Amino acid sequence: MTNLNAQWRLAARPVGLPNLSDWEYVEVAAAEPADGEFLVKLEYLSLDPAMRGWMNEVRSYVPPVGIGEVMRAGGLGRIVQSRHPDYGVGEQVSGMFGVQQYATSDGTGVNRVDTTLAAAPVYLGGLGMTALTAYFGLLDIGRPEPGQTVVVSGAAGAVGSIAGQIARIKGCRVVGIAGGREKCEWITDELGFDAAIDYKRGDLRAQLREQTPDGVDVYFDNVGGEILDEVLRRIARGARVVICGAISQYNAEQPTRGPANYMQLLVMRASMTGFLVFDFAPRYGEGIAQLAEWLSSGKLKSREDIVTGRLEKFPEVFLRLFRGENTGKLVLELIENEG
Amino acid sequence: MTNLNAQWRLAARPVGLPNLSDWEYVEVAAAEPADGEFLVKLEYLSLDPAMRGWMNEVRSYVPPVGIGEVMRAGGLGRIVQSRHPDYGVGEQVSGMFGVQQYATSDGTGVNRVDTTLAAAPVYLGGLGMTALTAYFGLLDIGRPEPGQTVVVSGAAGAVGSIAGQIARIKGCRVVGIAGGREKCEWITDELGFDAAIDYKRGDLRAQLREQTPDGVDVYFDNVGGEILDEVLRRIARGARVVICGAISQYNAEQPTRGPANYMQLLVMRASMTGFLVFDFAPRYGEGIAQLAEWLSSGKLKSREDIVTGRLEKFPEVFLRLFRGENTGKLVLELIENEG
Repeated sequence: MTNLNAQWRLAARPVGLPNLSDWEYVEVAAAEPADGEFLVKLEYLSLDPAMRGWMNEVRSYVPPVGIGEVMRAGGLGRIVQSRHPDYGVGEQVSGMFGVQQYATSDGTGVNRVDTTLAAAPVYLGGLGMTALTAYFGLLDIGRPEPGQTVVVSGAAGAVGSIAGQIARIKGCRVVGIAGGREKCEWITDELGFDAAIDYKRGDLRAQLREQTPDGVDVYFDNVGGEILDEVLRRIARGARVVICGAISQYNAEQPTRGPANYMQLLVMRASMTGFLVFDFAPRYGEGIAQLAEWLSSGKLKSREDIVTGRLEKFPEVFLRLFRGENTGKLVLELIENEG
Repeated sequence: MTNLNAQWRLAARPVGLPNLSDWEYVEVAAAEPADGEFLVKLEYLSLDPAMRGWMNEVRSYVPPVGIGEVMRAGGLGRIVQSRHPDYGVGEQVSGMFGVQQYATSDGTGVNRVDTTLAAAPVYLGGLGMTALTAYFGLLDIGRPEPGQTVVVSGAAGAVGSIAGQIARIKGCRVVGIAGGREKCEWITDELGFDAAIDYKRGDLRAQLREQTPDGVDVYFDNVGGEILDEVLRRIARGARVVICGAISQYNAEQPTRGPANYMQLLVMRASMTGFLVFDFAPRYGEGIAQLAEWLSSGKLKSREDIVTGRLEKFPEVFLRLFRGENTGKLVLELIENEG
């Protein structure tokens, strides 16, 4: 019996915020695993701002998703057929399986999921790629020192919420920038950030001045745009600006807004450095072990913002990322289509 | 007998390109040196793009020149009176003496000039602050490796012409960006750059693509603006962008144009770092010794673009910097006013 596979394929290059018509929903027969492959039935889809970038035809760190190809996404599921010597039916695994119900894999980039240690969605959140992004970006690129001031934008998002907590664990003063009172209260009251700045409240400049009296030693930027410019005005001598993302610009129809205050890098002998978590693959084990320890001791909290629904809901749930509607890691928990 | 001192004082904060009315020319009695001071009669004024920034009332690495204060500038002259134990009449010295005919000093930041080793203006050029800026900025911030591609903007200027030559000495492929055929020929034919790009010729993008087939490993930026953006499109993985200046923006009446392509830093895991030569003061001796060795062996060429005239000419000569009219280090050699 062949399984029916539902897929979202890229249909067009979006201009601005993606529309439903930028993808095509199709139902096809699921591929049979070839020798050395296994078939995964997806249970959770990871929804990440970076996916928006993969839809553009530009020079980037991975090739763009081709028109007609299954939309690229991370996910987690259970092996339902296997012709691979190392993976057996019933095992749960995570990997870049795409926006579909069933995926075949030869095991490349696949990790095993042990739900006796943490619930499955945590492997997409607090133990997943977004947490590793926060871990290596903050510690290796930002290099915060105890007592320094660390500012994190997108602070209630999957990466920012972890980055800020790691900075706190390392003894820094941590200021998070997020949109709305609820998110701000969450990062201070639940996650232990020293302060939160609600950019929707306005007067970002005054709020930043108040919360960073000694300037900013590390800025972990997930958003770009005006917020990046305002934080640049506050950087301290020798500051490290970590470029992790620029969600404010991903759907811009105008050319990206560059940081007009970049000459503060000269004034303050500071640096702005981009990074990709993939370059740290040889050290994922170290990162996951440390994150797991912090999670189990309660020093680090991970929140997975789980939406449950059928695969058809993907576009609608994905776009919540760009409306600031998620808190923590956005995950789509898949309910199977009626047969 | 008291000397008559001519001075240019800052009269107003310029908007855009400075006007004559932004300074005031005055003639006053020269100060007498106090105990522990000496009086210098200026012979050469150093004219540098950075001076434009010092006229603005903004947070920077030095306080702005105050309204009514003598315009800040480096210079070189001869001691004509001394009440300082370590400096005698007749010695030639360089320092931040300001745009004036006579200056008093207690020796802070002053260096002796030995004209048996190099002509006096070389101490403002190939052995001066601009050359040290190139030396430390390229080597310590840019960290070029043999065989890598180094691009330098403002390549026919005081800093860029030295930075590019040092990169060549270190075994790099060096591409200079300059305005006009004459400058381009100078940097390739005289200074040994591997290639020159004339940004005035247009189609900067195509010229850059042609001259940097393997991408750009180090970009030493003196200009900012469109050129910075175009080079960002070409950076190689792990590239270092050195922010030395942004002359294209210094007179902008609009807000600074930020580098819209800064997300290439993420794509290419690259960094953009600002620096100030002053932070390398403990190592000036090392830099000057190395520059002097390269100059005397002919590996490094220094060109001082010397304009001779009275102090009154300062504004007019200074503005040549922003019209792209100088090649090499712009120096005003002072002729004394008729008494």
